[in-house]
Amino acid sequence: MNYPKQVKLVEVGPRDGLQNEKVIIETADKIELINRLSTTGLSVVEATSFVSPKWVPQMADNKLVMEGITRQPNVSYPVLTPNQKGFEAALSAGAKEVAVFGAASESFSQKNINCSIQESLERFDPIMKLAEQHSIKVRGYVSCVLGCPYEGEINVSTVASVAKTLSDMGCYEISLGDTIGVGTPLKAQMMIESVAKYIPLEKLAIHFHDTYGQALANILACLSLGISTVDSSVAGLGGCPYAKGASGNVATEDVVYMLQGMGIETGIDLNKLIEAGQFISNKLGRKPMSKVANALSS
Amino acid sequence: MNYPKQVKLVEVGPRDGLQNEKVIIETADKIELINRLSTTGLSVVEATSFVSPKWVPQMADNKLVMEGITRQPNVSYPVLTPNQKGFEAALSAGAKEVAVFGAASESFSQKNINCSIQESLERFDPIMKLAEQHSIKVRGYVSCVLGCPYEGEINVSTVASVAKTLSDMGCYEISLGDTIGVGTPLKAQMMIESVAKYIPLEKLAIHFHDTYGQALANILACLSLGISTVDSSVAGLGGCPYAKGASGNVATEDVVYMLQGMGIETGIDLNKLIEAGQFISNKLGRKPMSKVANALSS
Repeated sequence: MNYPKQVKLVEVGPRDGLQNEKVIIETADKIELINRLSTTGLSVVEATSFVSPKWVPQMADNKLVMEGITRQPNVSYPVLTPNQKGFEAALSAGAKEVAVFGAASESFSQKNINCSIQESLERFDPIMKLAEQHSIKVRGYVSCVLGCPYEGEINVSTVASVAKTLSDMGCYEISLGDTIGVGTPLKAQMMIESVAKYIPLEKLAIHFHDTYGQALANILACLSLGISTVDSSVAGLGGCPYAKGASGNVATEDVVYMLQGMGIETGIDLNKLIEAGQFISNKLGRKPMSKVANALSS
Repeated sequence: MNYPKQVKLVEVGPRDGLQNEKVIIETADKIELINRLSTTGLSVVEATSFVSPKWVPQMADNKLVMEGITRQPNVSYPVLTPNQKGFEAALSAGAKEVAVFGAASESFSQKNINCSIQESLERFDPIMKLAEQHSIKVRGYVSCVLGCPYEGEINVSTVASVAKTLSDMGCYEISLGDTIGVGTPLKAQMMIESVAKYIPLEKLAIHFHDTYGQALANILACLSLGISTVDSSVAGLGGCPYAKGASGNVATEDVVYMLQGMGIETGIDLNKLIEAGQFISNKLGRKPMSKVANALSS
């Protein structure tokens, strides 16, 4: 097996994580979380989302967060922008990188944003144009790559097609998300192999949720194919709206522990990371959903 | 990668799991747990331990448990026997298979049973002789194969040597246990490769604890080498005495979910397994420590 020597972790806790948490976190605490994370050695910390506060009240303070954080020179702080309005707000708040979101499931797209996959991707056209004008990097997410809460199994060719469209539109990296955490290692590999026919592995990231406890095994399986960018969420922030009480994103601490144990470089200080996770878990009034954090702090 | 087509799961919840649980379970409930497990399709259910009740009060009812269970024709019910006295008690309670336990760490052996590894293995001589006379199968456990709570990293050659001694003494299967759950995939593979120089892969089992969340990834890594026997504990029964509040054995439900997703046959009915785990978790007054169980029952 041919594991990468180095893995880039994309920390999604402050955005993908917190937006699925019910406890509303104070702006100052979000800023402190992002500042802590960005001094652990992480090179990407997804900071917030420029969506309507009607839909995601947790992210209503997006502008304040972006203006409040202390930006580290080698850290990128992407923000989610679902439409042109969000993009313009992100730009005026000083964002240098944004992310857009497509689904690999028609039912999920219809139920979540009330349009087809194709229509949802076309809506990103003005964002891509503005991004080019302003030299803003755009990351593309594909959700439901290994299963959909409404239609079950997803055809890998649909995943490949959505990923290719986002890549062709100009996304510099495509993050393939197992939104409901149902995937297992061989299926994850088949999905990656299908997408890799159209997009070079270096441009692909994997984004696993640990709902069924499979995230680390899936990550390992994808690393063995040469994937070297992994999304994760400190303290496993973020639940799963489709399975109450279930785990959310894979915990960054657990991924870093595995990679360090395998001699794969991440540049991350695990202790500092655990402290950041404990800080935000305290604010949420619970223990970190990271087994490594709990084992090392017991 | 060359995954096995079929995997045998060795269910250790009623013994290795419960002996690390503080809540004392009633004998009738243990019997019900074992009976439920042995009708899920599992072929091995470790039932109890013939140790001094001074050391393991949870297992004081070993004889009653063995006499009370309904034995299924194709299910084996091994019991742990640390010495000749335990073996004789197991025999008179009708055990057809026993297990013995060696450590791959000198400090662990000294602290736990107050003798060297070599001495501990010699103590099994009378058990092996009696077992042969009575046609009792003996399974050998090796603990601390990827780390020791007292001395840290363990040399793989020590693991191989202890495993070989147990195999040479007549153990039909050797279960390699990451007792404190610190292992990561490449280290697990190196350990297996070291042991496999002396013992055929078909005689090896793996036994992972999920203390650091690495169990499924480690299992996947070992399966890719051809390992096809995996120990696990329903509902993740069993804590970790070396890290309070940490997870114990890997949950059988999570292993079965991964294997089924990979098209690897186990013969196990996942729903029945989840029900057995929920039954015993109710008795312990908590949720199952299986992400699959929690996701599917939410």
